[in-house]
Amino acid sequence: MSIITLTTDYGLKDHFVGALKGKILSEYPEATIIDISHYIDPFNTLEASYIIGAAFSSFPKGTVHIIGVDMERNKENQHIAMQWNDSYFIAADNGILSLLSQKIVPQKIVAINIHDHLANDASGLDVFVKSACHVAKGGLLHVIGKEIHSIKEITALKASVSETKNAIKGQVVYIDHFGNVVTNITKKLFLEVANGRPYEIVMRNKNIKTILPNYSAIASSEKYPIKNYEGEKLALFNEAGYLEIAIFRSNPASVGSAHSLLGLNYSDVVTVAFTN
Amino acid sequence: MSIITLTTDYGLKDHFVGALKGKILSEYPEATIIDISHYIDPFNTLEASYIIGAAFSSFPKGTVHIIGVDMERNKENQHIAMQWNDSYFIAADNGILSLLSQKIVPQKIVAINIHDHLANDASGLDVFVKSACHVAKGGLLHVIGKEIHSIKEITALKASVSETKNAIKGQVVYIDHFGNVVTNITKKLFLEVANGRPYEIVMRNKNIKTILPNYSAIASSEKYPIKNYEGEKLALFNEAGYLEIAIFRSNPASVGSAHSLLGLNYSDVVTVAFTN
Amino acid sequence: MSIITLTTDYGLKDHFVGALKGKILSEYPEATIIDISHYIDPFNTLEASYIIGAAFSSFPKGTVHIIGVDMERNKENQHIAMQWNDSYFIAADNGILSLLSQKIVPQKIVAINIHDHLANDASGLDVFVKSACHVAKGGLLHVIGKEIHSIKEITALKASVSETKNAIKGQVVYIDHFGNVVTNITKKLFLEVANGRPYEIVMRNKNIKTILPNYSAIASSEKYPIKNYEGEKLALFNEAGYLEIAIFRSNPASVGSAHSLLGLNYSDVVTVAFTN
Repeated sequence: MSIITLTTDYGLKDHFVGALKGKILSEYPEATIIDISHYIDPFNTLEASYIIGAAFSSFPKGTVHIIGVDMERNKENQHIAMQWNDSYFIAADNGILSLLSQKIVPQKIVAINIHDHLANDASGLDVFVKSACHVAKGGLLHVIGKEIHSIKEITALKASVSETKNAIKGQVVYIDHFGNVVTNITKKLFLEVANGRPYEIVMRNKNIKTILPNYSAIASSEKYPIKNYEGEKLALFNEAGYLEIAIFRSNPASVGSAHSLLGLNYSDVVTVAFTN
Repeated sequence: MSIITLTTDYGLKDHFVGALKGKILSEYPEATIIDISHYIDPFNTLEASYIIGAAFSSFPKGTVHIIGVDMERNKENQHIAMQWNDSYFIAADNGILSLLSQKIVPQKIVAINIHDHLANDASGLDVFVKSACHVAKGGLLHVIGKEIHSIKEITALKASVSETKNAIKGQVVYIDHFGNVVTNITKKLFLEVANGRPYEIVMRNKNIKTILPNYSAIASSEKYPIKNYEGEKLALFNEAGYLEIAIFRSNPASVGSAHSLLGLNYSDVVTVAFTN
Repeated sequence: MSIITLTTDYGLKDHFVGALKGKILSEYPEATIIDISHYIDPFNTLEASYIIGAAFSSFPKGTVHIIGVDMERNKENQHIAMQWNDSYFIAADNGILSLLSQKIVPQKIVAINIHDHLANDASGLDVFVKSACHVAKGGLLHVIGKEIHSIKEITALKASVSETKNAIKGQVVYIDHFGNVVTNITKKLFLEVANGRPYEIVMRNKNIKTILPNYSAIASSEKYPIKNYEGEKLALFNEAGYLEIAIFRSNPASVGSAHSLLGLNYSDVVTVAFTN
């Protein structure tokens, strides 16, 4: 119970991340601190949701995740701590955690109320650090807050199934470092709806006929070296379980990527059409 | 006494930072190494000063801070180790530490003289690593250097108070990841000079009437949601104690920032004018 | 035997690096994880080779280096673990490690064969994590793979010596954060061929007469302050042992660098000509 992860929009040039780690180590010298990302688009709660949702399952049970995105406490957003899927999350109640709680019911949520016990000039960050260290040390949630039973929802784009079940309509929700385009269509939803039927993935004026088990599977023929397939478009479920459109061995700065070559951008529609 | 922090202009693409950590762990396997920043503008000693000055207070007493900016030893700059405010700093004597020593008198400063005890091909970095690990393990400063009583001063821009005490004139000294603009006017100086009088912050052709306790306080009316206030300009004292001009929920890449929207750049003048 | 380093092309915005660390800590909670670089140019195995080759010697014996560049297992590239120079390397057999094995004969190489023992949805990353943690804990290589005696070679540009031994012809193999230009001419080769003779370094339409012991040595006269030498070109052997062409106190974003000012780019020729 001693890993604390950090997901913020602070960037790495300023002293913010280093100072945050200093505060954690001052409070809990044995903590193992792991960066998930500090390059969340500023105040982009949807992007923060996607990143934390994709990362949490790689960490052991009991890990405490601090989410420092749009975290200032104000009249709309209180600070909360959530126990969910045997992990802990400290965030502002700005909707970031609702994408998790929509999937699995949280074990416990509290509205953090330790603000008055801290020094006069304590910041929101100090509250997060105190709360995270308390939980990481094995402390109980009710000590740092009052139980609540619902959190703020954000209406992220959700993949939808057509009435006839002949199509799943999703959207681009993330573009990664390689320019690969991640949609909100999960492997789980796809398998349920497909039920073994043939399909085709349609986006803009392009389509893809097969979802591959991995990137290299694009090299379908034994006759040609893998290098011959560089630049080809493909689809697969990424390791976080989402349908991803990729360019084989893409490089945004040189050969291009699914984002640049296929012209796919945030919110663009990607459809899985079942052909019978 | 086992945290060693790193503040450099090495960037994160090259192997320099990884190699530096490898050297530290070779010398002192139990060290906890924390990055403060590796994106200091190359050879910018003023920026390094600001960052280390803003970060140090978040770390426990006894922390050792390595500053790898313009660190090559040469005829002008020797290597020094400074005990200050119960923390330790290893740097070249190029002025970086003078912004700290001007505020609080150092407890001890030594000119590092272990260079001849190291292998022939030892670099300046090796000297810093040896020195930092020695101190982090609890070693005494006089073992690694000869005491000196002054260090090189840099003349950073300093906020000045007008003769009539009717204005504080400061300058922009840092622009952060959010494009917020940090001045050299401290909360301490402001409180001393203001003495409760009304004021107005003037920069270029704009002004701001109030220094807020935090960003969200810009949402002054209960009638409107906080979202309505996005893009408004505001002023506050940042957590490092400096007057900051910000745009509420700014994003340099999309909606803009204090830097871009207000046209405030490094060295630009920001004045606090007292109105009686 | 508990340091695991990471060299990848994953970037730091996505969750990939954080998730990788979570997987390592799940498997081996005591591991000390050190980032070498996550900004390798995507799929650029030569750049990965240079970076790991420049970094490894700073780490203690027994360190395990994971190289996550072009790492998907496919019909051409199996996963390998190599014991070399008392360090361990986990990578795809895509040529990255050949630049090391060409210099020193590896102690042992195995083709990793634990893929079938892992869960059905295990990724290549899971294989790397399992293998790295096994070795970091002191496990033997033959437990995770079958011994092999050769690995895939990549033909990196190599510096060549003219027949008359009057010149060493090298190429630019890396451009660092400061815009300094690193060639493939090693100090070792230079010393062997030079044998004390005078020389001149020639690149494009410029030349340099001396290889300096360090950057500050450009300030040759005691009469002038070091600042006067800013912007001058110089040559030295970098701490990884390669001939580097630099601009004194360069800054790619402002004053310029060897890359921008001298017009030196990847693969450009740099020659050391001996003048008698």
